[in-house]
Amino acid sequence: MEKEISIEHLRNSIENYLGNYFKDKGSYNKKVYEAMEYSLGAGGKRIRPLLLLLTYMLYKDDFEKVLPIASAVEMIHTYSLIHDDLPCMDNDDLRRGKPTNHKVFGEAVAVLAGDGLLNEGMSTMLKSCMNGQYNFIKACSIIAESAGAEGMVGGQTVDILSENTKIPIDQLYYMHSKKTGAVIKASIIAGAVLGEAPKRDIENLDYYGQKLGLAFQIKDDILDIVGNTEVLGKKAKSDLDNNKTTFITTYGLNKCIEMCNSITAECIEVLDNISGDTSKLKDLTLFLLNREK
Amino acid sequence: MEKEISIEHLRNSIENYLGNYFKDKGSYNKKVYEAMEYSLGAGGKRIRPLLLLLTYMLYKDDFEKVLPIASAVEMIHTYSLIHDDLPCMDNDDLRRGKPTNHKVFGEAVAVLAGDGLLNEGMSTMLKSCMNGQYNFIKACSIIAESAGAEGMVGGQTVDILSENTKIPIDQLYYMHSKKTGAVIKASIIAGAVLGEAPKRDIENLDYYGQKLGLAFQIKDDILDIVGNTEVLGKKAKSDLDNNKTTFITTYGLNKCIEMCNSITAECIEVLDNISGDTSKLKDLTLFLLNREK
Repeated sequence: MEKEISIEHLRNSIENYLGNYFKDKGSYNKKVYEAMEYSLGAGGKRIRPLLLLLTYMLYKDDFEKVLPIASAVEMIHTYSLIHDDLPCMDNDDLRRGKPTNHKVFGEAVAVLAGDGLLNEGMSTMLKSCMNGQYNFIKACSIIAESAGAEGMVGGQTVDILSENTKIPIDQLYYMHSKKTGAVIKASIIAGAVLGEAPKRDIENLDYYGQKLGLAFQIKDDILDIVGNTEVLGKKAKSDLDNNKTTFITTYGLNKCIEMCNSITAECIEVLDNISGDTSKLKDLTLFLLNREK
Repeated sequence: MEKEISIEHLRNSIENYLGNYFKDKGSYNKKVYEAMEYSLGAGGKRIRPLLLLLTYMLYKDDFEKVLPIASAVEMIHTYSLIHDDLPCMDNDDLRRGKPTNHKVFGEAVAVLAGDGLLNEGMSTMLKSCMNGQYNFIKACSIIAESAGAEGMVGGQTVDILSENTKIPIDQLYYMHSKKTGAVIKASIIAGAVLGEAPKRDIENLDYYGQKLGLAFQIKDDILDIVGNTEVLGKKAKSDLDNNKTTFITTYGLNKCIEMCNSITAECIEVLDNISGDTSKLKDLTLFLLNREK
């Protein structure tokens, strides 16, 4: 394991890959590429691809080999943000500090830009599988499944249909484990599968992924209340405005902060049981807990 | 080659596969499955999966082996119809003789049902690739690419941005070769690749696919003018209402009928140069020419 590859180096590699991906593409269809690039380049934290790469690197050095798959996850994540922001969904004007996709390109092109990114993510994964390696196909299949109706799309459906309704706790956990948790967990498992991790590690990483997704969402709910729009880059208190049931409305702010801390501690503990040097995964885990946006 | 497998038998197999696919799925997310099933089960002609299966069967008998991939193409096609019908796109109320998805489930769930079907189609293809066979991965990759920004999504973008504009002929051909043609051609090539067709056949089938997609779209434009809403199952004269440039506005009705006939004849001729018994592919080709919806 080359210890000197930093999280920052990996993040730059992802940025480069995504930044060059659509270069010189398009003719009459140029507009949809512009819209896709606009949201993809809007400066996300790249959490999901980083989780995939860092998990992979517990077992293998050559992260460039799986960089296309990691970047595909970011395309899939970005498609979901574009569609979530649409007027018929959360109707958000601001994302990552910039006007949302439909505000710039109009609703029709925003729907198509989302569709385009989802297609491109899947297409990139299929191309990565051309080596015929079972672990590649398995990993991509896990990611694809996590994005669908049994994962992210299902969670978003429950979220949309739950507006203005007080939902029970089990439904709140279900919703977030699907909407946010599924792709986060899948990124981690996919990294492990690509790295040919031992079965026992995959089980532990599955648990880590579940807990991390939960802590991530509770932190999101906390930031929605205590954060401000300028730092967040998206509208603060939007959950309140949309009359949503959140961890905050369910447990209150103090309990949420406590939960977030203790679940993060549990994540770190699980990482201690994994073979290999998990220090960078721990750094990223703590970064997610302490982030301000 | 078992000659007794009819187009009807294949269509029933596709219907069965799709009809059972979402059975017993869903809990809190049930609504998105209902919406997905609603459009998937609305009785399309299943042209794209049939083209894939019939091309495959020029070379192999065991069509069940590629039925999931054929059915995935129909999921991808159906997602595109749901999104195309949205108020921000073509704003259509009727599709396949039934109210469009957003008319029944609302816009938000319709966007998600489209997303769900696209994800599920890709996920099904990735699962089919778990056998590690290069021709499976290659075929699925061809399909995925044809659906993206360089294919169907790109064509739809040009279509949407061209409303109320008179577009030049080369842009009209570009638009349709992407919007309708790309997935039709990809279904045919994918069938050939899955069947391990000889290179010369694949080249001929590529040409056949291009021409068939073109004839299909010209026929669509003709039906939009001469058909009626009841038979079509979607609003007639919608191109006129949306002030779109079509083959009809470009060439006039009579010339379009002539073009459709001659391109179809060319398709049949190309099929004569393919190894294997192409009689059923010819039947389907003529069916597409003579259809009334």
